[in-house]
Amino acid sequence: MIETPAIRPPLTQIPREVCCAQDYEWLAPNFIGEAAHAYVAGGCGPELTLAANRAAFEQTAILPRMLVDVTGGHTGLELFGCHLPHPVLLAPVAYQTLVHPLGEVETARGAAATDSCLVVSTLAGRTLEEVAAQAGDKRWFQLYFQPRRADTANLLSRAEAAGYKALIVTLDTAIKTPSLRAQRAGFAMPRQVVAASLADYPIPPQRLLERGQSLVFQGAMAEAPTWDDLAWLLGETRLPVIVKGVLRPADAQRLKAMGVAGLVVSNHGGRALDGAPASLRLLPAIRAAVGAGYPLLLDSGIRSGSDVFKGLALGADAVMVGRLQVYALAVAGALGVAHLLKLLRGELEVCMAQAGCATLADIGPDMIYH
Amino acid sequence: MIETPAIRPPLTQIPREVCCAQDYEWLAPNFIGEAAHAYVAGGCGPELTLAANRAAFEQTAILPRMLVDVTGGHTGLELFGCHLPHPVLLAPVAYQTLVHPLGEVETARGAAATDSCLVVSTLAGRTLEEVAAQAGDKRWFQLYFQPRRADTANLLSRAEAAGYKALIVTLDTAIKTPSLRAQRAGFAMPRQVVAASLADYPIPPQRLLERGQSLVFQGAMAEAPTWDDLAWLLGETRLPVIVKGVLRPADAQRLKAMGVAGLVVSNHGGRALDGAPASLRLLPAIRAAVGAGYPLLLDSGIRSGSDVFKGLALGADAVMVGRLQVYALAVAGALGVAHLLKLLRGELEVCMAQAGCATLADIGPDMIYH
Amino acid sequence: MIETPAIRPPLTQIPREVCCAQDYEWLAPNFIGEAAHAYVAGGCGPELTLAANRAAFEQTAILPRMLVDVTGGHTGLELFGCHLPHPVLLAPVAYQTLVHPLGEVETARGAAATDSCLVVSTLAGRTLEEVAAQAGDKRWFQLYFQPRRADTANLLSRAEAAGYKALIVTLDTAIKTPSLRAQRAGFAMPRQVVAASLADYPIPPQRLLERGQSLVFQGAMAEAPTWDDLAWLLGETRLPVIVKGVLRPADAQRLKAMGVAGLVVSNHGGRALDGAPASLRLLPAIRAAVGAGYPLLLDSGIRSGSDVFKGLALGADAVMVGRLQVYALAVAGALGVAHLLKLLRGELEVCMAQAGCATLADIGPDMIYH
Amino acid sequence: MIETPAIRPPLTQIPREVCCAQDYEWLAPNFIGEAAHAYVAGGCGPELTLAANRAAFEQTAILPRMLVDVTGGHTGLELFGCHLPHPVLLAPVAYQTLVHPLGEVETARGAAATDSCLVVSTLAGRTLEEVAAQAGDKRWFQLYFQPRRADTANLLSRAEAAGYKALIVTLDTAIKTPSLRAQRAGFAMPRQVVAASLADYPIPPQRLLERGQSLVFQGAMAEAPTWDDLAWLLGETRLPVIVKGVLRPADAQRLKAMGVAGLVVSNHGGRALDGAPASLRLLPAIRAAVGAGYPLLLDSGIRSGSDVFKGLALGADAVMVGRLQVYALAVAGALGVAHLLKLLRGELEVCMAQAGCATLADIGPDMIYH
Repeated sequence: MIETPAIRPPLTQIPREVCCAQDYEWLAPNFIGEAAHAYVAGGCGPELTLAANRAAFEQTAILPRMLVDVTGGHTGLELFGCHLPHPVLLAPVAYQTLVHPLGEVETARGAAATDSCLVVSTLAGRTLEEVAAQAGDKRWFQLYFQPRRADTANLLSRAEAAGYKALIVTLDTAIKTPSLRAQRAGFAMPRQVVAASLADYPIPPQRLLERGQSLVFQGAMAEAPTWDDLAWLLGETRLPVIVKGVLRPADAQRLKAMGVAGLVVSNHGGRALDGAPASLRLLPAIRAAVGAGYPLLLDSGIRSGSDVFKGLALGADAVMVGRLQVYALAVAGALGVAHLLKLLRGELEVCMAQAGCATLADIGPDMIYH
Repeated sequence: MIETPAIRPPLTQIPREVCCAQDYEWLAPNFIGEAAHAYVAGGCGPELTLAANRAAFEQTAILPRMLVDVTGGHTGLELFGCHLPHPVLLAPVAYQTLVHPLGEVETARGAAATDSCLVVSTLAGRTLEEVAAQAGDKRWFQLYFQPRRADTANLLSRAEAAGYKALIVTLDTAIKTPSLRAQRAGFAMPRQVVAASLADYPIPPQRLLERGQSLVFQGAMAEAPTWDDLAWLLGETRLPVIVKGVLRPADAQRLKAMGVAGLVVSNHGGRALDGAPASLRLLPAIRAAVGAGYPLLLDSGIRSGSDVFKGLALGADAVMVGRLQVYALAVAGALGVAHLLKLLRGELEVCMAQAGCATLADIGPDMIYH
Repeated sequence: MIETPAIRPPLTQIPREVCCAQDYEWLAPNFIGEAAHAYVAGGCGPELTLAANRAAFEQTAILPRMLVDVTGGHTGLELFGCHLPHPVLLAPVAYQTLVHPLGEVETARGAAATDSCLVVSTLAGRTLEEVAAQAGDKRWFQLYFQPRRADTANLLSRAEAAGYKALIVTLDTAIKTPSLRAQRAGFAMPRQVVAASLADYPIPPQRLLERGQSLVFQGAMAEAPTWDDLAWLLGETRLPVIVKGVLRPADAQRLKAMGVAGLVVSNHGGRALDGAPASLRLLPAIRAAVGAGYPLLLDSGIRSGSDVFKGLALGADAVMVGRLQVYALAVAGALGVAHLLKLLRGELEVCMAQAGCATLADIGPDMIYH
Repeated sequence: MIETPAIRPPLTQIPREVCCAQDYEWLAPNFIGEAAHAYVAGGCGPELTLAANRAAFEQTAILPRMLVDVTGGHTGLELFGCHLPHPVLLAPVAYQTLVHPLGEVETARGAAATDSCLVVSTLAGRTLEEVAAQAGDKRWFQLYFQPRRADTANLLSRAEAAGYKALIVTLDTAIKTPSLRAQRAGFAMPRQVVAASLADYPIPPQRLLERGQSLVFQGAMAEAPTWDDLAWLLGETRLPVIVKGVLRPADAQRLKAMGVAGLVVSNHGGRALDGAPASLRLLPAIRAAVGAGYPLLLDSGIRSGSDVFKGLALGADAVMVGRLQVYALAVAGALGVAHLLKLLRGELEVCMAQAGCATLADIGPDMIYH
């Protein structure tokens, strides 16, 4: 990690300065090299979507109920047949060895310590088997389609074999706008940070383009998944398949109709399409499109328990945190991740208590002020 | 007050620099230690609600009437059978000994000097009897439900015995999001600053939680008041009971229906639920819900006489000031509080005269520009 | 002018740095003492209205017409039987001797040099007769009702005798919120700066208030004009009477119905009621209330020829400039005022040419983009 | 170029710092003298329109489609019978010798290298014949009406003779509000920077105005084109005539009806009418006015491929870039211009791929989030 050295090694105790979940965001730059931090924190392009995500939460207000008896309250939920003690999942984040020497293995320990659901990325810095060995039983695998179907199928089998309980297929980043912030900071992925789970798959031969062909359309996108690929995938596994990266209500309906088990409404934290709207803004329309009872998750912009509350009120069943997870990992390893999750759950509980909601089912759209 | 020393002792005269009520806000940091100031000035969480309160006033515009004869004008009103010379009440603010050695006793003198209505907090730094001894006859008591009903009932009796004329029950802070600003400033309540009126009540035994129970739902909220508790309270006293902390029109209707005498539309000055909307924004809907003639007060964000005007125009009968009160107390004790109230009343009179409203009854919704 | 010394004496030539009318605003602080500048530039209270005035112009966009033949174009108009070469009037501004030793006499010379309409304030630093002697024939007198009707009537006679062609009665400042900016800058009106036209009227005896009476309602407002006073005034003069300070459509209708000759939609440049909306925002509703053909003027916030255009498009027949006038006077005396008017007229002509409007009659509401 | 010296000569290679098209904007000040940069970057007046252009793009969000097969994708289009490989044209920009010694000749080489469509200004620093000699076959000529019809006709013949394929007539700048930014920076056009194509036309005799006539209406605007002039022009050439500078839907309809071949919706990059709305905002209404299939171009504010996408989604067939072109020319001459165009096309392709649009025809209004 020569190019982007961590300024301080991860702490072995919870930092005193952390008063709330978002404080990990402010502390992290002390523990991540500047260029790597730009890579983690930045969004694509001029970061319009990154800013829109935060603005959407800040502009959403909660209208509390008074005097409700919440002594029977809890934050638990059932999701794909599994009981989760709280609705905050660890989003799949690639290359966590960039910010912590042990990477996702450490994240998994933090998740296990709090009985939280962990989603491991195809691009994890540690193999999916290594991570599974340290994870609790609430673990899902995030799948990126590989250039060769055989490799995708193999990943799938490995994930099933390693006890992952659900599959999140990310479909919003067939091609990415690079992060200008990272580029300007001179970021390059350090050599030792690799997608460990993919190490044994052959690198597909470089595609030769004819004159006049586009690096994008005939190049990168030649390997991008389509509706047919997704249909194939649904036939390959008995795990519930969740699609991540949905913003368009019509897409949501089609995905549900073809047998997808649930969706993650997401703009990839402002890291995919430069100029996409805030995920939170689309949530009500997507909930309306898929109807009640169909599992919807949200990510992109969550920094606090009240953000979680707002996401649930506008239609999500659960939410995922990406950057906060990385920040906590960088600051204090597994301990930081566990602490972060405890803080978020606690903040959600306080928000629910203040708003008069004893359970997640009570957090409906009428809790939002218009 | 070692941890948070006051930088200057309170003045014994009105400071020349004060041109308007809000100037006490700018002066106060010279008279309150930095950490204590952060505690007073800060809101909960990232202070979205604190900012929303001010924005709501700033975005509300007054449409004046011309050439109205206001020579018979005044700011008086009847409230719960009592004549008030003006509609600005001193909100219940806890622990005023934090900013002035004599605390609420001094505030009471300032209120009495201007014949203003004072609301004394359950968490006052001086006992309710000490404060009553220095207060004018326009004094109300603010009640927090105590862990033990007997203590609540005892507080009630003491308040009645001490001549308090009405009861404000605060119901929006069973649990609080801490002020990050205060935490970051290292604030801790100094040892000598205590809730004097509660000193003789036994501290209830610590509640032991079982494994898996929540510090929030089964912990703190186990003692939070519910609709039943409020019903009990209404049966315990002949004083008018006013509920403070209402934001939801449906709650307002239910409170009125069960016999509550009036409401304070409030988000606790941005100190309760992080993310609640501005109190001012909800006022018209709550007035519509309870109908004309039912007493409504407003707090949260008032800094000037024209803010008072805006609150009245949008549906309030009177308003309460919290932080300004504390700032004036810190700057110049009773004199400061009296001066503040005189300024606010004067600013309101000027605003009414400019807008062509001779009495509070003339300040209707059509005075607001849409 | 000891308390607020002018930093530089007025120039005797047009400053090179002035590229547009608003540049006089940026230059003025070099020619006006700091405290006096705060008095001129500031608005009342926290300056919400001052800011709203500018925001309203900035948020209004002009939708141009193409290819229109404007070679017969001009900016002339008829107003109260008088031909004006352009629709920018000099608003009545008090105490101009504060910024220039010769005060309004110099302003009058600038107006005369450009054949512009000048409105002289009751509170001018030079007598209305002195100013009339230097003014062109397009001069109006601005009237403040005096405490004694006899004095008001005398002022009226003097104005008629001195050849003023119309009367603007200002009715939005019976009482003023002071300018905090000026107070904070330590501004006090220098002793030698006086309302010269009022020098011979006796100061009315101070009104003694009874205990419990208000300095505002029974004090200052006892002398404030009412509908009856205005009716009396209309019977006292054959000059057209224009009312300044109208914001409320219903007031506008009533004023028209009682025989007032025209109105100035104005919030006194943010110097009267703290919290009033931008004058520009009310203009369309007031035009709708009084109908086509009834003279409407606008002031408050105009800084450029395109601001003039916007005011005309939204319903005004002409506009008035206050602060710009004072700035130009301070910078370069009569020359500055004349230059300012020439710039504003030129900017308006350019804007009209660009927008495809040959005459003021072409500048209708459909020139504004919604 | 003494008055506004270029700080660094143009590079002879692509600068490494450029990660995206807009980076040329940040680099340019190192290659253009301060005053000249103010002239290029500034808008007219207080730059309200300049800011509105950018705000419109930033506030427009793209709603992507998922899983679309775009492997057959491309950015090509037919425009006026000519195939363009991508929809980004080089806008006509005057006086490019101000920022590069070879001026438009160098720009033409950059366009030719990327097979992009170039529009050469009447006010080019190099003659239209010189530029044509270096340009590719996709070249259009931008026409300003000349004071004498004969000269306009001569320009037309020369453009046709030099192989220009279409004519863009700019009609929004018969008269310009000067750029305050440029004036304040002391900008004056250097003597050697001239409108080379006009060098041989006699300067028309100065128009003598009578007393009372306006420099604008009877002066500058006497030579401004009108509907009649445009009708004459349409009869003079067989080239397709495109009108640039349209903002008003009714004007668009009339232009189409009279035989104009296409329109450029434009506010001249905020350099024409101070206060005009953002071009992008008017695009949907103008598309609605002219109907589908009629060629519409857009300029004013485009800085990235996703801005191009937004323009196409809201109704444009293609877009033009002005300032970016100048910046790239200043930084690295023909190489910079070619690189800029390649970047913009690449950014557009990435945006299309991410949004699920294989061809420009797929980029409809439903790609925009409301």
